[in-house]
Amino acid sequence: MRVVALGGGHGLHATLTALRRCPPVTDIAAVVTVADDGGSSGRLRRELGLLPPGDLRMALAALAGDDERGRFWSGLVQHRFGGTGALAGHAVGNLLLAGLLERDGDPVRALATVGELMGCAGRVLPMARVPLDIEAEVALDGVDGAHLIRGQVAVASTPGRVRRVWLRPADPPACDEAVRAVRDADVVLLGPGSWFTSVLPHLLVPGLRDALLETPAARVVLLNLAPEPGETAGFSPEQHLEVLSGHAPGLRVHAVLADAGSVSLPDRLDAAAADLLVPGGRVWPAAVADARAATPRHDPDALAGALADVFGTLTPGRVPAENGTHDRPQHDSPQRGRSSRWP
Amino acid sequence: MRVVALGGGHGLHATLTALRRCPPVTDIAAVVTVADDGGSSGRLRRELGLLPPGDLRMALAALAGDDERGRFWSGLVQHRFGGTGALAGHAVGNLLLAGLLERDGDPVRALATVGELMGCAGRVLPMARVPLDIEAEVALDGVDGAHLIRGQVAVASTPGRVRRVWLRPADPPACDEAVRAVRDADVVLLGPGSWFTSVLPHLLVPGLRDALLETPAARVVLLNLAPEPGETAGFSPEQHLEVLSGHAPGLRVHAVLADAGSVSLPDRLDAAAADLLVPGGRVWPAAVADARAATPRHDPDALAGALADVFGTLTPGRVPAENGTHDRPQHDSPQRGRSSRWP
Repeated sequence: MRVVALGGGHGLHATLTALRRCPPVTDIAAVVTVADDGGSSGRLRRELGLLPPGDLRMALAALAGDDERGRFWSGLVQHRFGGTGALAGHAVGNLLLAGLLERDGDPVRALATVGELMGCAGRVLPMARVPLDIEAEVALDGVDGAHLIRGQVAVASTPGRVRRVWLRPADPPACDEAVRAVRDADVVLLGPGSWFTSVLPHLLVPGLRDALLETPAARVVLLNLAPEPGETAGFSPEQHLEVLSGHAPGLRVHAVLADAGSVSLPDRLDAAAADLLVPGGRVWPAAVADARAATPRHDPDALAGALADVFGTLTPGRVPAENGTHDRPQHDSPQRGRSSRWP
Repeated sequence: MRVVALGGGHGLHATLTALRRCPPVTDIAAVVTVADDGGSSGRLRRELGLLPPGDLRMALAALAGDDERGRFWSGLVQHRFGGTGALAGHAVGNLLLAGLLERDGDPVRALATVGELMGCAGRVLPMARVPLDIEAEVALDGVDGAHLIRGQVAVASTPGRVRRVWLRPADPPACDEAVRAVRDADVVLLGPGSWFTSVLPHLLVPGLRDALLETPAARVVLLNLAPEPGETAGFSPEQHLEVLSGHAPGLRVHAVLADAGSVSLPDRLDAAAADLLVPGGRVWPAAVADARAATPRHDPDALAGALADVFGTLTPGRVPAENGTHDRPQHDSPQRGRSSRWP
């Protein structure tokens, strides 16, 4: 089963970590946002005019080989320089990717090179070949009206509620290899992750959005465990789906996977999902949160189990098994993340 | 034949390039100075307190695999960031080595890792495991007396004549692997290169100097093609040998290879070499300069041919062939760098 995961940052890292533990999956591709303007990535981007490498690097790390060589290179690629000088905070992998990008300009080749070095269990692709900027209309806390906020960091951190995001340039060329991966996939995953700055941007690149709407692949939305301050503060799971629909008219999905413990009003989520789901599609509640984590994060094994359950209902023809989804026998091991209807 | 080349910078690059084209050579190790304080290396060293990586990187590049993979990684490692920002001028390979050094602290392992990546035809070792500083007593142009100059760049570029150099710390621990390579070698090469800042420093690391004096390997000095402004301005070839003796009392060598066209007073060179040579050792004049180069540089094929001639006189027991060196038939192809006595 060929799976393409769309996202960026920690959310995509969690998905990729789960996918490589998910037996039905034989082929993984990550399609990664390239709009980051903060930290090491932002400094490199401003200085050299290159794709911000940080999210790409994190996706590579999630897929790095689980042998000595993979761990060694992954550790180096993730290592950040210390001190207080010009290099402080730069990840070695960001600099390596920047060198490859500056030298021969092809991000797909650069990522394949570092991926090979790290023994990655899948491909990492940028959603576009040029660096992008995110702009947003935000309702600021305690201030009337809507405000324009520019840049991923500002959008993700300005206290308020994001209403709408768009990209600059507005019509960026998609990465051909990413478009092809989406069109050739059996399953495409959207989310989890920073909803406005890591998940929605893929739907704002016209070539990639068209591929997402037209692909015969099953589309699966993975909802976040919790709202994010500054970006989705106070957002319910159903509001995440409404925002998704709002930014991609015509998008229909085959499944929505939600952490059961993170949904307080299941009926509302089911209702919101109804507008987005194809016939036969459904919401899959599952216990996929890591109960021991201090901050909300997915448990990779639980998420892998839940994804395997969802994938099991998708026929080889890349559509949901007809009439089968609601009649499927329930599992009694929610702690492993297996799906069950709302408790 | 196991050959160890001692040096740094462009001189060492030339030697290594020649050695890999020299048929009798089966094993190459480079032992590299770690006292650079200029350019990308100087910035990294000051910022992170690490070994200056530039000379190490250049030696790796000289030994890089001659296949597609070797050329690719060598090109990346040598690539310097453009722009005018914090990264401008840093070679990607310097940053990669710095990351490895900062992360696990072992320069020998770091160099083996990058060497493997580049498919290197030999090992690169630092002469010491800690960064060193060069200090010098210099007779400044137009100023009476001797002056103390600190740092490799200053020593190499201050207009004047270097009289003596020493290291800070004065008694640095040698790199064990470098000491072992010298002791296990069949031939050890000294020079060419910046005489005071790339060639002599090896003789100032006590553990390495002892190994050089005690090794059963044949010791061969490769003289420079021309004096260097600021460091050896006005120095004749014989003065290079006198300086070498002055910095390493007790050192005896088995051959001195000189470019025939760069020696204006052969008798004086022979006389200066007599003090340094072992019985049976001799000066080998050969045409090893690249006649087409704008600035003095060795022709790698010519140097390889001349080295092969010298190596051919060294018995497997790692001493010069007894009485054989002066009776050896002369070759009639000086353009390939084969040795001949003074024309």
